[in-house]
Amino acid sequence: MSRIAYVNGRYVSQARAAIHVEDRGFQFADGVYEVCALRDGHLIDEAQHMARLARSLAELKIRAPMSGTALAHVMREVVRRNRVANGLVYIQVSRGVARRDHGFPAASVEPTLVVTARTLDLTKYDELATKGISVILVPETRWARCDIKSTGLLANVLAKQQAREAGAFEAWFIDGEGFITEGASTNAWIVDKNNVLRTRSLSDAILPGVTRGEILSLCRQHEVVFDHSPFTADEALCAKEAFISAATMGVLAVKKIDNVKIGDGTPGPISAKLREIYWATRIT
Amino acid sequence: MSRIAYVNGRYVSQARAAIHVEDRGFQFADGVYEVCALRDGHLIDEAQHMARLARSLAELKIRAPMSGTALAHVMREVVRRNRVANGLVYIQVSRGVARRDHGFPAASVEPTLVVTARTLDLTKYDELATKGISVILVPETRWARCDIKSTGLLANVLAKQQAREAGAFEAWFIDGEGFITEGASTNAWIVDKNNVLRTRSLSDAILPGVTRGEILSLCRQHEVVFDHSPFTADEALCAKEAFISAATMGVLAVKKIDNVKIGDGTPGPISAKLREIYWATRIT
Repeated sequence: MSRIAYVNGRYVSQARAAIHVEDRGFQFADGVYEVCALRDGHLIDEAQHMARLARSLAELKIRAPMSGTALAHVMREVVRRNRVANGLVYIQVSRGVARRDHGFPAASVEPTLVVTARTLDLTKYDELATKGISVILVPETRWARCDIKSTGLLANVLAKQQAREAGAFEAWFIDGEGFITEGASTNAWIVDKNNVLRTRSLSDAILPGVTRGEILSLCRQHEVVFDHSPFTADEALCAKEAFISAATMGVLAVKKIDNVKIGDGTPGPISAKLREIYWATRIT
Repeated sequence: MSRIAYVNGRYVSQARAAIHVEDRGFQFADGVYEVCALRDGHLIDEAQHMARLARSLAELKIRAPMSGTALAHVMREVVRRNRVANGLVYIQVSRGVARRDHGFPAASVEPTLVVTARTLDLTKYDELATKGISVILVPETRWARCDIKSTGLLANVLAKQQAREAGAFEAWFIDGEGFITEGASTNAWIVDKNNVLRTRSLSDAILPGVTRGEILSLCRQHEVVFDHSPFTADEALCAKEAFISAATMGVLAVKKIDNVKIGDGTPGPISAKLREIYWATRIT
Protein backbone atom coordinates (compact mmCIF):
# COMPACT_ATOMS: atom_id res chain seq x y z
CA MET A 1 0.00 0.00 0.00
CA SER A 2 1.44 3.37 -0.92
CA ARG A 3 1.35 5.99 1.80
CA ILE A 4 -0.85 9.07 1.59
CA ALA A 5 0.03 12.53 2.86
CA TYR A 6 -2.11 15.60 3.29
CA VAL A 7 -0.55 18.73 1.77
CA ASN A 8 -2.37 22.05 1.60
CA GLY A 9 -5.87 20.79 0.97
CA ARG A 10 -5.13 17.58 -0.91
CA TYR A 11 -4.52 13.95 -0.07
CA VAL A 12 -1.65 12.87 -2.29
CA SER A 13 0.64 9.92 -2.69
CA GLN A 14 3.37 10.48 -0.12
CA ALA A 15 6.02 9.66 -2.73
CA ARG A 16 4.89 12.77 -4.63
CA ALA A 17 4.02 14.94 -1.62
CA ALA A 18 5.85 18.19 -2.15
CA ILE A 19 6.12 21.77 -1.01
CA HIS A 20 7.45 24.74 -2.95
CA VAL A 21 11.18 25.53 -2.87
CA GLU A 22 10.31 28.98 -1.53
CA ASP A 23 8.30 27.59 1.35
CA ARG A 24 9.49 29.45 4.43
CA GLY A 25 9.70 26.15 6.25
CA PHE A 26 12.43 25.10 3.82
CA GLN A 27 14.27 28.41 3.50
CA PHE A 28 14.03 29.77 7.06
CA ALA A 29 12.83 26.97 9.39
CA ASP A 30 9.89 29.33 9.79
CA GLY A 31 7.40 26.77 11.03
CA VAL A 32 6.34 24.43 13.79
CA TYR A 33 5.30 20.81 14.16
CA GLU A 34 3.66 18.25 16.40
CA VAL A 35 3.97 14.49 16.71
CA CYS A 36 0.97 12.67 18.16
CA ALA A 37 1.21 9.00 19.08
CA LEU A 38 -1.37 6.45 17.91
CA ARG A 39 -2.18 3.38 19.96
CA ASP A 40 -4.81 0.92 18.84
CA GLY A 41 -6.16 3.57 16.51
CA HIS A 42 -6.45 6.24 19.22
CA LEU A 43 -4.69 9.59 19.04
CA ILE A 44 -2.88 9.91 22.37
CA ASP A 45 -3.04 13.21 24.31
CA GLU A 46 -4.48 14.86 21.21
CA ALA A 47 -6.00 17.88 22.96
CA GLN A 48 -2.69 18.71 24.63
CA HIS A 49 -0.77 18.41 21.34
CA MET A 50 -3.29 20.64 19.60
CA ALA A 51 -3.07 23.20 22.41
CA ARG A 52 0.72 23.25 22.12
CA LEU A 53 0.49 23.62 18.33
CA ALA A 54 -1.78 26.62 18.80
CA ARG A 55 0.68 28.11 21.29
CA SER A 56 3.69 27.58 18.98
CA LEU A 57 1.83 29.24 16.10
CA ALA A 58 0.74 32.14 18.28
CA GLU A 59 4.30 32.73 19.55
CA LEU A 60 5.52 32.98 15.95
CA LYS A 61 2.43 34.85 14.74
CA ILE A 62 1.73 32.17 12.14
CA ARG A 63 -1.94 31.88 11.30
CA ALA A 64 -3.59 28.53 12.04
CA PRO A 65 -4.02 26.81 8.66
CA MET A 66 -7.54 25.61 9.55
CA SER A 67 -9.86 25.21 12.51
CA GLY A 68 -9.12 22.66 15.21
CA THR A 69 -12.14 20.65 14.11
CA ALA A 70 -10.95 20.56 10.51
CA LEU A 71 -7.42 19.61 11.56
CA ALA A 72 -8.77 16.83 13.77
CA HIS A 73 -10.66 15.53 10.74
CA VAL A 74 -7.58 15.68 8.50
CA MET A 75 -5.48 13.84 11.07
CA ARG A 76 -8.05 11.06 11.30
CA GLU A 77 -8.39 10.88 7.54
CA VAL A 78 -4.60 10.54 7.10
CA VAL A 79 -4.56 7.83 9.75
CA ARG A 80 -7.45 6.03 8.08
CA ARG A 81 -6.03 6.25 4.56
CA ASN A 82 -2.70 4.90 5.79
CA ARG A 83 -4.34 2.23 7.97
CA VAL A 84 -2.17 3.07 10.95
CA ALA A 85 -3.22 1.55 14.29
CA ASN A 86 0.02 1.98 16.23
CA GLY A 87 2.40 4.69 15.21
CA LEU A 88 2.33 8.44 14.89
CA VAL A 89 0.74 11.38 13.14
CA TYR A 90 3.09 14.18 12.11
CA ILE A 91 1.74 17.71 11.60
CA GLN A 92 3.87 20.54 10.22
CA VAL A 93 2.81 24.12 9.64
CA SER A 94 5.00 26.77 8.02
CA ARG A 95 4.43 30.45 7.35
CA GLY A 96 3.83 29.58 3.70
CA VAL A 97 5.38 30.36 0.34
CA ALA A 98 6.71 33.81 -0.45
CA ARG A 99 9.60 35.42 -2.29
CA ARG A 100 12.60 34.97 -0.02
CA ASP A 101 12.85 37.79 2.52
CA HIS A 102 13.52 37.36 6.24
CA GLY A 103 10.62 39.52 7.44
CA PHE A 104 7.11 38.11 7.47
CA PRO A 105 5.29 38.02 4.12
CA ALA A 106 1.92 39.68 3.51
CA ALA A 107 -0.85 38.50 5.83
CA SER A 108 -2.62 37.06 2.79
CA VAL A 109 0.04 34.37 2.37
CA GLU A 110 -1.51 31.02 3.32
CA PRO A 111 0.36 28.88 5.84
CA THR A 112 1.52 25.48 4.61
CA LEU A 113 0.05 22.40 6.29
CA VAL A 114 1.47 18.91 5.92
CA VAL A 115 0.06 15.88 7.77
CA THR A 116 1.56 12.39 7.51
CA ALA A 117 1.14 9.18 9.47
CA ARG A 118 3.17 6.07 9.85
CA THR A 119 3.24 2.77 11.67
CA LEU A 120 5.81 2.25 14.41
CA ASP A 121 7.09 -1.03 15.75
CA LEU A 122 6.01 -0.71 19.39
CA THR A 123 7.87 -3.87 20.38
CA LYS A 124 11.09 -1.96 19.68
CA TYR A 125 10.23 0.57 22.38
CA ASP A 126 9.08 -2.14 24.75
CA GLU A 127 12.45 -3.84 24.31
CA LEU A 128 14.29 -0.58 24.86
CA ALA A 129 12.19 0.02 27.99
CA THR A 130 13.17 -3.38 29.37
CA LYS A 131 16.88 -2.94 28.70
CA GLY A 132 17.19 0.80 29.29
CA ILE A 133 18.84 3.25 26.94
CA SER A 134 22.17 5.10 26.96
CA VAL A 135 22.50 8.86 27.00
CA ILE A 136 25.44 11.16 26.33
CA LEU A 137 25.85 14.69 27.65
CA VAL A 138 26.55 17.51 25.20
CA PRO A 139 26.78 21.30 25.56
CA GLU A 140 23.56 23.23 24.97
CA THR A 141 23.87 24.84 21.54
CA ARG A 142 20.24 25.61 20.71
CA TRP A 143 18.52 28.95 20.39
CA ALA A 144 16.85 30.88 23.19
CA ARG A 145 13.26 29.77 22.45
CA CYS A 146 13.27 26.00 22.87
CA ASP A 147 9.75 26.33 24.29
CA ILE A 148 8.50 26.80 20.70
CA LYS A 149 8.25 23.49 18.85
CA SER A 150 9.84 24.90 15.72
CA THR A 151 11.40 22.99 12.85
CA GLY A 152 14.69 24.76 13.53
CA LEU A 153 16.13 21.46 14.72
CA LEU A 154 19.67 21.44 13.36
CA ALA A 155 21.28 21.54 16.81
CA ASN A 156 19.03 18.64 17.83
CA VAL A 157 20.00 16.72 14.69
CA LEU A 158 23.70 17.16 15.42
CA ALA A 159 23.28 16.13 19.07
CA LYS A 160 21.24 13.05 18.15
CA GLN A 161 23.81 12.04 15.55
CA GLN A 162 26.60 12.48 18.12
CA ALA A 163 24.67 10.16 20.45
CA ARG A 164 24.29 7.56 17.69
CA GLU A 165 27.97 7.67 16.88
CA ALA A 166 28.72 7.13 20.58
CA GLY A 167 26.40 4.10 20.59
CA ALA A 168 23.78 5.99 22.64
CA PHE A 169 20.07 6.58 22.04
CA GLU A 170 19.79 10.19 23.18
CA ALA A 171 21.85 13.28 23.98
CA TRP A 172 21.05 15.54 26.93
CA PHE A 173 22.01 19.19 26.65
CA ILE A 174 23.92 20.85 29.51
CA ASP A 175 23.32 24.59 29.78
CA GLY A 176 25.94 27.24 30.58
CA GLU A 177 25.34 26.80 34.31
CA GLY A 178 25.87 23.05 34.27
CA PHE A 179 22.20 22.04 34.40
CA ILE A 180 20.57 19.57 32.05
CA THR A 181 17.91 21.21 29.91
CA GLU A 182 16.42 18.26 27.98
CA GLY A 183 17.20 15.69 25.31
CA ALA A 184 17.54 16.20 21.56
CA SER A 185 13.95 14.97 21.09
CA THR A 186 12.82 14.01 24.61
CA ASN A 187 12.47 15.50 28.10
CA ALA A 188 14.97 14.47 30.77
CA TRP A 189 14.22 13.10 34.25
CA ILE A 190 16.11 11.68 37.23
CA VAL A 191 15.25 10.14 40.58
CA ASP A 192 17.82 11.78 42.83
CA LYS A 193 19.65 10.36 45.85
CA ASN A 194 16.76 11.45 48.09
CA ASN A 195 14.30 9.48 45.93
CA VAL A 196 12.81 12.69 44.54
CA LEU A 197 11.78 12.64 40.90
CA ARG A 198 13.15 15.74 39.20
CA THR A 199 12.63 17.39 35.85
CA ARG A 200 13.36 20.94 34.89
CA SER A 201 10.58 23.49 35.25
CA LEU A 202 9.08 25.07 32.14
CA SER A 203 10.88 28.06 30.65
CA ASP A 204 12.28 29.21 27.30
CA ALA A 205 15.00 26.56 27.75
CA ILE A 206 12.87 23.46 27.19
CA LEU A 207 9.92 22.24 25.22
CA PRO A 208 6.78 21.90 27.33
CA GLY A 209 6.57 18.17 26.64
CA VAL A 210 3.02 16.87 26.49
CA THR A 211 4.13 13.50 27.84
CA ARG A 212 6.16 15.33 30.51
CA GLY A 213 3.01 17.17 31.62
CA GLU A 214 0.95 13.99 31.69
CA ILE A 215 3.60 12.19 33.74
CA LEU A 216 3.57 15.01 36.28
CA SER A 217 -0.23 14.67 36.53
CA LEU A 218 0.16 10.95 37.13
CA CYS A 219 2.79 11.64 39.80
CA ARG A 220 0.29 13.83 41.64
CA GLN A 221 -2.39 11.13 41.43
CA HIS A 222 -0.06 8.32 42.45
CA GLU A 223 1.81 10.23 45.15
CA VAL A 224 5.18 10.08 43.47
CA VAL A 225 7.27 12.83 45.09
CA PHE A 226 8.63 15.20 42.46
CA ASP A 227 10.37 18.52 42.26
CA HIS A 228 10.65 20.97 39.35
CA SER A 229 14.23 21.93 40.19
CA PRO A 230 16.82 21.57 37.44
CA PHE A 231 19.56 19.01 37.99
CA THR A 232 23.23 19.14 37.10
CA ALA A 233 25.23 16.69 35.01
CA ASP A 234 26.85 15.43 38.22
CA GLU A 235 23.47 14.87 39.85
CA ALA A 236 22.39 12.92 36.77
CA LEU A 237 25.48 10.72 36.93
CA CYS A 238 24.78 9.99 40.62
CA ALA A 239 21.02 9.50 40.21
CA LYS A 240 19.22 6.40 41.44
CA GLU A 241 17.19 6.34 38.25
CA ALA A 242 16.92 8.35 35.07
CA PHE A 243 14.51 8.30 32.16
CA ILE A 244 13.37 10.14 29.07
CA SER A 245 9.84 10.95 27.95
CA ALA A 246 8.35 11.63 24.53
CA ALA A 247 5.00 11.21 22.82
CA THR A 248 5.83 8.17 20.71
CA MET A 249 7.97 6.42 23.33
CA GLY A 250 6.24 7.23 26.60
CA VAL A 251 8.81 6.66 29.35
CA LEU A 252 12.14 4.98 28.58
CA ALA A 253 14.54 4.24 31.43
CA VAL A 254 18.17 5.34 31.11
CA LYS A 255 20.73 2.70 32.06
CA LYS A 256 23.88 4.72 31.35
CA ILE A 257 24.84 8.38 31.06
CA ASP A 258 28.24 9.06 29.46
CA ASN A 259 28.96 5.36 30.06
CA VAL A 260 28.33 5.66 33.81
CA LYS A 261 25.78 3.15 35.09
CA ILE A 262 22.66 4.71 36.58
CA GLY A 263 21.56 2.78 39.68
CA ASP A 264 22.43 -0.84 39.01
CA GLY A 265 22.32 -0.29 35.26
CA THR A 266 18.79 -1.60 34.79
CA PRO A 267 15.48 0.31 34.70
CA GLY A 268 14.49 1.43 38.20
CA PRO A 269 11.09 0.98 39.84
CA ILE A 270 9.82 4.54 39.44
CA SER A 271 10.70 4.61 35.72
CA ALA A 272 9.01 1.25 35.19
CA LYS A 273 5.93 2.24 37.17
CA LEU A 274 5.51 5.53 35.30
CA ARG A 275 5.95 3.82 31.95
CA GLU A 276 3.26 1.34 32.86
CA ILE A 277 0.71 3.79 34.22
CA TYR A 278 1.38 6.30 31.43
CA TRP A 279 0.32 3.84 28.72
CA ALA A 280 -2.37 2.25 30.87
CA THR A 281 -4.07 5.61 31.35
CA ARG A 282 -3.84 6.75 27.71
CA ILE A 283 -6.67 4.61 26.39
CA THR A 284 -9.64 4.74 28.69
CA MET B 1 8.74 35.50 -18.67
CA SER B 2 8.25 32.74 -16.12
CA ARG B 3 11.16 32.08 -13.82
CA ILE B 4 13.18 28.88 -13.93
CA ALA B 5 14.67 27.09 -10.93
CA TYR B 6 17.14 24.25 -10.76
CA VAL B 7 16.02 21.42 -8.46
CA ASN B 8 17.94 18.15 -8.14
CA GLY B 9 19.10 17.78 -11.71
CA ARG B 10 16.27 19.54 -13.55
CA TYR B 11 15.49 23.04 -14.72
CA VAL B 12 11.82 23.57 -13.93
CA SER B 13 9.30 26.36 -13.92
CA GLN B 14 9.85 28.11 -10.59
CA ALA B 15 6.09 28.14 -9.99
CA ARG B 16 6.22 24.34 -9.88
CA ALA B 17 9.67 23.97 -8.28
CA ALA B 18 9.16 21.65 -5.34
CA ILE B 19 10.94 19.51 -2.81
CA HIS B 20 9.58 16.52 -0.92
CA VAL B 21 7.71 17.05 2.36
CA GLU B 22 10.26 14.78 4.04
CA ASP B 23 13.19 16.82 2.84
CA ARG B 24 15.40 17.33 5.88
CA GLY B 25 15.70 20.98 4.94
CA PHE B 26 11.95 21.33 5.56
CA GLN B 27 11.63 19.09 8.61
CA PHE B 28 14.87 19.85 10.48
CA ALA B 29 16.51 22.95 8.92
CA ASP B 30 19.21 20.43 8.11
CA GLY B 31 20.83 22.37 5.29
CA VAL B 32 22.85 25.38 4.25
CA TYR B 33 22.67 28.12 1.66
CA GLU B 34 24.55 30.88 -0.13
CA VAL B 35 23.50 34.10 -1.77
CA CYS B 36 25.79 35.43 -4.49
CA ALA B 37 25.27 38.89 -5.95
CA LEU B 38 25.11 39.52 -9.68
CA ARG B 39 26.23 42.81 -11.19
CA ASP B 40 26.18 43.36 -14.92
CA GLY B 41 25.97 39.62 -15.39
CA HIS B 42 28.99 38.88 -13.19
CA LEU B 43 28.83 36.66 -10.11
CA ILE B 44 30.39 38.71 -7.33
CA ASP B 45 32.96 37.10 -4.99
CA GLU B 46 31.91 33.71 -6.34
CA ALA B 47 35.02 31.80 -5.24
CA GLN B 48 34.62 33.02 -1.65
CA HIS B 49 30.93 32.07 -1.56
CA MET B 50 31.70 28.61 -2.93
CA ALA B 51 34.47 28.16 -0.36
CA ARG B 52 32.08 29.10 2.42
CA LEU B 53 29.44 26.72 1.06
CA ALA B 54 32.00 23.92 1.11
CA ARG B 55 32.90 24.80 4.69
CA SER B 56 29.25 24.88 5.85
CA LEU B 57 28.64 21.48 4.25
CA ALA B 58 31.78 20.02 5.79
CA GLU B 59 30.85 21.30 9.27
CA LEU B 60 27.49 19.54 9.00
CA LYS B 61 28.93 16.49 7.20
CA ILE B 62 26.56 17.01 4.28
CA ARG B 63 27.97 15.69 1.04
CA ALA B 64 28.47 18.25 -1.75
CA PRO B 65 25.64 17.67 -4.24
CA MET B 66 27.99 18.05 -7.22
CA SER B 67 31.49 19.27 -8.09
CA GLY B 68 32.35 22.94 -7.89
CA THR B 69 32.67 23.05 -11.68
CA ALA B 70 29.22 21.55 -12.15
CA LEU B 71 27.69 23.91 -9.61
CA ALA B 72 29.33 26.90 -11.29
CA HIS B 73 27.73 25.74 -14.54
CA VAL B 74 24.28 25.34 -12.95
CA MET B 75 24.48 28.79 -11.38
CA ARG B 76 25.32 30.35 -14.75
CA GLU B 77 22.60 28.38 -16.49
CA VAL B 78 19.98 29.53 -13.94
CA VAL B 79 21.16 33.13 -14.38
CA ARG B 80 21.04 32.80 -18.17
CA ARG B 81 17.61 31.17 -18.27
CA ASN B 82 16.21 33.88 -15.99
CA ARG B 83 18.02 36.68 -17.88
CA VAL B 84 19.29 38.25 -14.66
CA ALA B 85 21.96 40.91 -15.06
CA ASN B 86 21.69 42.57 -11.65
CA GLY B 87 20.36 40.59 -8.75
CA LEU B 88 21.28 37.42 -6.94
CA VAL B 89 21.73 33.70 -7.23
CA TYR B 90 20.42 31.63 -4.31
CA ILE B 91 21.85 28.18 -3.64
CA GLN B 92 20.41 25.83 -1.03
CA VAL B 93 21.64 22.36 -0.13
CA SER B 94 19.94 20.05 2.35
CA ARG B 95 20.85 16.61 3.64
CA GLY B 96 18.17 15.18 1.36
CA VAL B 97 14.96 13.22 1.72
CA ALA B 98 14.60 10.46 4.29
CA ARG B 99 12.01 9.06 6.66
CA ARG B 100 11.86 11.52 9.54
CA ASP B 101 14.48 10.72 12.17
CA HIS B 102 16.79 13.24 13.84
CA GLY B 103 20.03 11.32 13.23
CA PHE B 104 21.66 11.41 9.81
CA PRO B 105 20.14 9.15 7.16
CA ALA B 106 22.12 6.51 5.26
CA ALA B 107 25.13 7.85 3.38
CA SER B 108 23.42 6.83 0.14
CA VAL B 109 20.76 9.55 0.56
CA GLU B 110 21.39 12.24 -2.05
CA PRO B 111 21.59 15.83 -0.84
CA THR B 112 18.97 18.20 -2.24
CA LEU B 113 20.18 21.11 -4.38
CA VAL B 114 18.06 24.11 -5.31
CA VAL B 115 19.37 27.07 -7.31
CA THR B 116 17.28 30.12 -8.14
CA ALA B 117 18.06 33.60 -9.46
CA ARG B 118 16.25 36.88 -9.43
CA THR B 119 16.62 40.46 -10.45
CA LEU B 120 17.06 43.12 -7.76
CA ASP B 121 16.38 46.80 -8.05
CA LEU B 122 19.86 48.16 -7.35
CA THR B 123 18.61 51.74 -7.26
CA LYS B 124 16.78 50.81 -4.04
CA TYR B 125 20.06 50.00 -2.34
CA ASP B 126 21.73 53.08 -3.80
CA GLU B 127 18.94 55.19 -2.32
CA LEU B 128 19.27 53.46 1.04
CA ALA B 129 23.02 54.04 0.91
CA THR B 130 22.50 57.75 0.34
CA LYS B 131 19.98 58.14 3.14
CA GLY B 132 21.36 55.61 5.60
CA ILE B 133 19.34 52.89 7.30
CA SER B 134 17.97 52.43 10.81
CA VAL B 135 18.94 49.58 13.09
CA ILE B 136 17.40 48.26 16.30
CA LEU B 137 19.21 46.30 19.00
CA VAL B 138 17.78 42.96 20.14
CA PRO B 139 19.05 40.24 22.47
CA GLU B 140 21.03 37.43 20.84
CA THR B 141 18.72 34.42 20.65
CA ARG B 142 20.41 32.28 18.00
CA TRP B 143 22.17 28.96 18.37
CA ALA B 144 25.83 28.44 19.17
CA ARG B 145 27.01 27.85 15.58
CA CYS B 146 26.20 31.06 13.73
CA ASP B 147 29.41 30.51 11.75
CA ILE B 148 27.55 27.87 9.72
CA LYS B 149 25.31 29.41 7.07
CA SER B 150 22.43 27.09 7.89
CA THR B 151 18.79 27.53 6.98
CA GLY B 152 17.94 27.47 10.69
CA LEU B 153 17.00 31.14 10.46
CA LEU B 154 13.93 31.48 12.63
CA ALA B 155 15.64 33.74 15.19
CA ASN B 156 16.86 35.89 12.30
CA VAL B 157 13.34 36.02 10.86
CA LEU B 158 11.88 37.17 14.17
CA ALA B 159 14.60 39.81 14.65
CA LYS B 160 14.16 41.15 11.11
CA GLN B 161 10.41 41.33 11.57
CA GLN B 162 10.87 43.18 14.87
CA ALA B 163 13.07 45.67 13.02
CA ARG B 164 10.44 46.14 10.31
CA GLU B 165 7.71 46.72 12.88
CA ALA B 166 9.93 49.35 14.51
CA GLY B 167 10.40 51.06 11.14
CA ALA B 168 14.02 49.90 10.92
CA PHE B 169 15.88 48.00 8.21
CA GLU B 170 17.99 45.68 10.32
CA ALA B 171 18.32 44.27 13.85
CA TRP B 172 21.70 43.83 15.53
CA PHE B 173 22.01 41.06 18.11
CA ILE B 174 23.58 41.85 21.51
CA ASP B 175 25.23 38.85 23.16
CA GLY B 176 25.10 37.97 26.85
CA GLU B 177 28.15 40.13 27.55
CA GLY B 178 26.72 43.24 25.93
CA PHE B 179 28.63 43.01 22.66
CA ILE B 180 27.07 43.23 19.21
CA THR B 181 27.45 39.99 17.28
CA GLU B 182 25.97 40.84 13.88
CA GLY B 183 22.73 41.70 12.10
CA ALA B 184 19.84 39.39 11.24
CA SER B 185 21.19 39.05 7.68
CA THR B 186 24.23 41.35 7.60
CA ASN B 187 27.53 41.92 9.42
CA ALA B 188 27.82 44.92 11.78
CA TRP B 189 30.50 47.63 11.76
CA ILE B 190 31.25 50.91 13.52
CA VAL B 191 33.83 53.66 13.29
CA ASP B 192 34.54 54.33 16.94
CA LYS B 193 35.36 57.61 18.68
CA ASN B 194 39.05 57.09 17.90
CA ASN B 195 38.25 56.75 14.20
CA VAL B 196 39.00 53.04 14.27
CA LEU B 197 36.82 50.82 12.10
CA ARG B 198 35.65 47.88 14.17
CA THR B 199 33.89 44.62 13.43
CA ARG B 200 33.79 41.52 15.53
CA SER B 201 36.43 38.86 14.91
CA LEU B 202 35.40 35.52 13.47
CA SER B 203 34.10 32.89 15.89
CA ASP B 204 31.09 30.61 16.32
CA ALA B 205 29.09 33.75 17.15
CA ILE B 206 28.97 35.27 13.65
CA LEU B 207 28.81 34.30 10.04
CA PRO B 208 32.13 34.76 8.25
CA GLY B 209 30.63 37.27 5.85
CA VAL B 210 32.18 37.16 2.39
CA THR B 211 31.57 40.88 1.93
CA ARG B 212 32.97 41.46 5.44
CA GLY B 213 36.18 39.67 4.43
CA GLU B 214 36.48 41.60 1.20
CA ILE B 215 35.99 44.92 3.02
CA LEU B 216 38.77 44.05 5.43
CA SER B 217 41.06 43.30 2.46
CA LEU B 218 40.18 46.68 0.98
CA CYS B 219 40.89 48.36 4.34
CA ARG B 220 44.39 46.86 4.29
CA GLN B 221 44.98 48.08 0.74
CA HIS B 222 43.57 51.54 1.38
CA GLU B 223 45.13 52.03 4.82
CA VAL B 224 41.85 52.26 6.69
CA VAL B 225 42.69 51.55 10.34
CA PHE B 226 40.62 48.68 11.67
CA ASP B 227 40.42 46.46 14.69
CA HIS B 228 38.77 43.07 15.14
CA SER B 229 37.62 43.84 18.68
CA PRO B 230 33.91 43.41 19.43
CA PHE B 231 31.98 46.54 20.34
CA THR B 232 29.23 47.07 22.86
CA ALA B 233 25.76 48.47 22.31
CA ASP B 234 26.90 51.67 24.06
CA GLU B 235 29.93 51.98 21.78
CA ALA B 236 27.63 51.54 18.79
CA LEU B 237 25.32 54.30 20.00
CA CYS B 238 28.32 56.65 20.45
CA ALA B 239 30.01 55.67 17.18
CA LYS B 240 31.08 58.27 14.63
CA GLU B 241 29.81 55.99 11.87
CA ALA B 242 28.14 52.62 11.57
CA PHE B 243 27.31 50.41 8.63
CA ILE B 244 26.18 46.94 7.62
CA SER B 245 27.59 44.67 4.95
CA ALA B 246 26.06 41.85 2.91
CA ALA B 247 26.56 40.28 -0.49
CA THR B 248 23.60 41.81 -2.27
CA MET B 249 23.82 45.24 -0.60
CA GLY B 250 27.55 45.81 -0.28
CA VAL B 251 27.99 48.51 2.37
CA LEU B 252 24.97 50.41 3.74
CA ALA B 253 25.53 53.23 6.22
CA VAL B 254 23.53 53.26 9.44
CA LYS B 255 21.98 56.62 10.32
CA LYS B 256 20.22 55.58 13.53
CA ILE B 257 20.52 52.81 16.12
CA ASP B 258 17.55 52.44 18.45
CA ASN B 259 16.48 55.90 17.26
CA VAL B 260 19.79 57.48 18.32
CA LYS B 261 21.51 59.40 15.51
CA ILE B 262 24.89 58.01 14.52
CA GLY B 263 27.33 60.88 13.81
CA ASP B 264 25.25 63.65 12.28
CA GLY B 265 22.61 61.15 11.11
CA THR B 266 23.92 60.91 7.57
CA PRO B 267 26.32 58.37 6.04
CA GLY B 268 29.88 59.06 7.16
CA PRO B 269 32.97 59.29 4.94
CA ILE B 270 34.44 55.87 5.74
CA SER B 271 31.13 54.10 5.08
CA ALA B 272 30.71 55.97 1.80
CA LYS B 273 34.29 55.30 0.73
CA LEU B 274 34.09 51.60 1.49
CA ARG B 275 30.78 51.29 -0.35
CA GLU B 276 32.30 52.95 -3.37
CA ILE B 277 35.53 50.96 -3.50
CA TYR B 278 33.77 47.70 -2.68
CA TRP B 279 31.59 47.86 -5.78
CA ALA B 280 34.32 49.48 -7.90
CA THR B 281 36.65 46.58 -7.21
CA ARG B 282 34.11 43.81 -7.79
CA ILE B 283 34.08 43.95 -11.55
CA THR B 284 37.58 44.21 -12.89
